[in-house]
Amino acid sequence: MHLDNSTICAIATPPGNGAIALLRVSGDKAFNICDKLVIFKRKSKKINYQSTQTIFYCNILDKDIIIDDVLISIFKKPHSYTGEDVVEISCHGSIYIQQKILELLIKNGARFAQPGEFTFRAFMNGKLDLSQAEAVADLIASQNQASHHVAMNQMRGGFSHMLEGLRKQLLEFTSLIELELDFSEEDVEFADREKMLDLIYEIISTCEKLAQSFKLGNAIKNGIPVAIVGKPNTGKSTLLNTLLNEDKAIVSEIPGTTRDSIEDTINIKGIRVRFIDTAGIRDTDDIIENLGIEKTFEKIKNAVVILLVIDDTGNINDIHEQLKKIHISTEQSLAIVLNKIDRIGVKELKDKLMLMSDLPFETIAIAAKFKRNIESIEQLILNAVNYGSISEDDVIITNVRHFEALEKTIFSGNNVIGDLNNNISPDLISEDIREMLHHIGEITGEVTTDEILGNIFKNFCIGK
Amino acid sequence: MHLDNSTICAIATPPGNGAIALLRVSGDKAFNICDKLVIFKRKSKKINYQSTQTIFYCNILDKDIIIDDVLISIFKKPHSYTGEDVVEISCHGSIYIQQKILELLIKNGARFAQPGEFTFRAFMNGKLDLSQAEAVADLIASQNQASHHVAMNQMRGGFSHMLEGLRKQLLEFTSLIELELDFSEEDVEFADREKMLDLIYEIISTCEKLAQSFKLGNAIKNGIPVAIVGKPNTGKSTLLNTLLNEDKAIVSEIPGTTRDSIEDTINIKGIRVRFIDTAGIRDTDDIIENLGIEKTFEKIKNAVVILLVIDDTGNINDIHEQLKKIHISTEQSLAIVLNKIDRIGVKELKDKLMLMSDLPFETIAIAAKFKRNIESIEQLILNAVNYGSISEDDVIITNVRHFEALEKTIFSGNNVIGDLNNNISPDLISEDIREMLHHIGEITGEVTTDEILGNIFKNFCIGK
Repeated sequence: MHLDNSTICAIATPPGNGAIALLRVSGDKAFNICDKLVIFKRKSKKINYQSTQTIFYCNILDKDIIIDDVLISIFKKPHSYTGEDVVEISCHGSIYIQQKILELLIKNGARFAQPGEFTFRAFMNGKLDLSQAEAVADLIASQNQASHHVAMNQMRGGFSHMLEGLRKQLLEFTSLIELELDFSEEDVEFADREKMLDLIYEIISTCEKLAQSFKLGNAIKNGIPVAIVGKPNTGKSTLLNTLLNEDKAIVSEIPGTTRDSIEDTINIKGIRVRFIDTAGIRDTDDIIENLGIEKTFEKIKNAVVILLVIDDTGNINDIHEQLKKIHISTEQSLAIVLNKIDRIGVKELKDKLMLMSDLPFETIAIAAKFKRNIESIEQLILNAVNYGSISEDDVIITNVRHFEALEKTIFSGNNVIGDLNNNISPDLISEDIREMLHHIGEITGEVTTDEILGNIFKNFCIGK
Repeated sequence: MHLDNSTICAIATPPGNGAIALLRVSGDKAFNICDKLVIFKRKSKKINYQSTQTIFYCNILDKDIIIDDVLISIFKKPHSYTGEDVVEISCHGSIYIQQKILELLIKNGARFAQPGEFTFRAFMNGKLDLSQAEAVADLIASQNQASHHVAMNQMRGGFSHMLEGLRKQLLEFTSLIELELDFSEEDVEFADREKMLDLIYEIISTCEKLAQSFKLGNAIKNGIPVAIVGKPNTGKSTLLNTLLNEDKAIVSEIPGTTRDSIEDTINIKGIRVRFIDTAGIRDTDDIIENLGIEKTFEKIKNAVVILLVIDDTGNINDIHEQLKKIHISTEQSLAIVLNKIDRIGVKELKDKLMLMSDLPFETIAIAAKFKRNIESIEQLILNAVNYGSISEDDVIITNVRHFEALEKTIFSGNNVIGDLNNNISPDLISEDIREMLHHIGEITGEVTTDEILGNIFKNFCIGK
C-alpha cells in the first residue's frame, strides 16, 4: 500500500440493506468529485464554499435521474479522520443505491479504496501512530468488554506514547555517542554512560512488562483454547456441559456468536474460552483410532490449557501411558482433573501421579455431575494466561507483531548493556542502540516496511 | 403506533461489523440524553449550544470508561428527518460498541424505536405524506433500477401531490354543497354542477390511469410469476435453460440474489421474472401424481403468465384435456408454446386449438434448443403487465393499498356522477362525495386509521 494522491471512496457501513448507509470519499479531489454528483437542495452551491464539520441535505444525480436524497457531511483538511478533504454521504440503505453512488463516485474520478486505506492515510498523515492504527481494526472486531477495553486503550495511544518518549531519549544518546566518533582521537565521552545505562534498563523493564502482558492480551483477543483429553465416560462431557450450562447465557448475549461456537465456547470474566473435545490417548493398532489420536496430539499442541480427565475407573497405568505421551511447552498449562473420585482415592492418586511424571501439572478433584469444584477449573484456565496478576487498567498488548518487536528490543537492549559494561567502543555501542531504536520504532511506526504495512492494513475492513 | 413524547433511539445501519455504524436519537430529550454520555473532545460543551447541521468529534463515556471516539451530528427541530431534535452518532462499527451505546442511550432515558418509527414521526410531523413514507421502505428494498425508479418517484411525491390538489378542489365543492343544505328551502345552487362534474371526471380518469399502472408497478416491485406447464421432454427445461442462460449474467449482478433464485429468476428489461416449473396436467388414478397435479393448479392460480409447452409428440386430445382443466382470471395471460414443431404442423395445430377452447390465449412457435423466437416469450411476459404501454416516466403505483383505494375512489366517483346526472338532492351528493374524499385521503394520509398505520410501518426496518 502506497500513499498516492488519488481520491478514494468506499461504503463504510456493514454490507446489506438497512435504514442508512454511509459512503466515504477522501483525497484532494473529494470536494471536486462530489460536486459533480451532489446537488444542494436549497440552491446551487459548491462543497468547498461550506464550513468544515457541516451537514447538507442534497440530491445525488446520475445525469438527470435522482438516485437518492442524502445528507452530506463535509470535513476539510486536516479536520478529518484521514487528515485529507473528506465527504461522507449518508444515503438510504438500499444495496442498489449504495452501489450506484459508489459507481458514480468512481465514474467521476475516485478510486475504490483498499481495505484499511482510510486508516492507512490517517497514519501516513500523522493522525495516528501505527499501534493506534492497528487498534482501530481490533476495536471494530471487539465482541466483548475485555477485548474492547484493551483495543480502546491501545487506540488512545496507551503504550506507544510511552515507548515513543523512551525512544526519543535513546535517540539523543545515540546522537551524542555518534558525536564521540567524530572526536574519537580525543577520547571524550559526551554521552553520560551511567544515565544511558539507567535509560536502557528502564526501556528493557518497560518492554518486559508489556511482553508479559501478551499472554493475557492474546487470550482476550483470540480466546483461550483448552483441550479436554480423556476417554468417553470419564465425565468429560458432563464436565463440558456443566461448564457450558453455567455460562451459556453470557455467551449467547454476544451478537455474532454462532450456534456452533456457543456449544463449546464459554465466557470466563469476559474472556472467551474455547473447549476442544478430544479422544483419549492410548496405544492401539486400529488405524482409524490412531488417526483420532493423531488429531488429539495436534489439538494438544495448539491448546494453551490441557485438561486430562480421569475417573475412578481409570487404571493408574493407563494414566501413566497417557501422561508419557503428552508433551507441553513452557507456555502451556496441564491439569489432571480427577472426576468422581472419593477423598482417599484422590489423595492416593495425587501421590502416585507426582512420582510418576516429571511434567509440571496441577491436580483438581471435581464432581462434574454435582458441579463440585468447577470454579477451580475456571480459575486454573485464567491463571494460565496470567489473569489477575495483571490489572485491567494496566497496558496490555494483544498483537503478536508488537510482542515480537518487544522481545527483539529486550534482546538488543541486553546487548547494549553488555557493551556498556565491557566498555566497548562507541561505534559498536551505537550499532546496537540503532538496533534497539529500530525495534521500538517498528511498534510505534517510526520504522516501517512495505511488508509490515501490507500485513497490518490487509486485515482491515473496506471503508475503514 | 402512536405519537408519544418519548425520545427514541436505534441502530440505523445494517446489522453486523463494519467500518462505521450509525445510531439515531430523536425526540424532545435527544440533546439532553446525549449530553449525559457524550463528551466533546475540545472542551466541555452542551449539544444545545451548537448550531444545527454541525458535526463534533466526541467521546462516549460509560461513567469513567471510554466506549468510543465518535462523531455526533446535530439536527435541531424542525431541521431533521423526523422534524424533531435529532442526534446521529457515528461510531466504530463493532457490534459490542453499537450495543453498548444503545444500552447507554436507553439507560439515560431514550426508548428503543419500533420499526419505521422515525419515518412515522416524520409523517406525523408533516415532513412527508403517507405515500411518501411508504416509498421510503420501497426505496430501501429496491434492488434494481426499475424498482428504485418507481420508489424514488413516489417518495418525491409523484402522484400524492396531484391527488392532494384534486382532493382540495373536491373539498371546496363539498363545502358549497353542504352550504346548500342550510338553505335547502330556498332551492339555491352554490356549487356549479357543470364544473363539479368536470372535476369528478378528472379525478376518475386520474385514478384510472394510476390504477392501470398497478399491474406493471406490482411486477416491478414483486416480479412476475410465470408458471411453465408441460410434460417432461416437451422442451420445457430447454426453454427454461435458454431463458436463464441468456440473462444469468444480469441476474447475478444484483447483490443479494441467492444461488437458489438465480436458477429460476431472470431479469427482463429490469423486471424480475420468476419461473415456476410444474408437472403437466392429466387425468390419472395415481395418488402421488394427483398431488403433483394439485400443486400445479395452485401454481397456475398464483401466476401472472401461464406458458403451456407442447411439442410434436403432443396428442391434440392431450392438449385439449389440459386446456379444459386450466382456469384463468382476466388478470392472467395464457400462451401455448409450440416447441420444435414444423411450420405446417404449427399452422394446423393453431387452427385446431382455436376451435377447441374458448380461453383467450396466444400461441408462440419456438425452437428452444436453437433459441428460436425466445424473444417472443419475453415480449409476451412483458405485455402481460402492460410494459411498454406505460412509459418509465409515467407515475406508476406499486402498492396494493393504493390500488384498492383508487378502485374505491373510482367506484364512489361513478356514484357521484350518477347522483349529479339524476339531479339528486344535495345531502345524498354530499354523502357520496365524502366517500370519495375518504378514499383519496387514504392514499395521501389525510385519512388514516391505526390499522393502516400499523400495517404500513411494521414493514420498515429498525432505525428508519
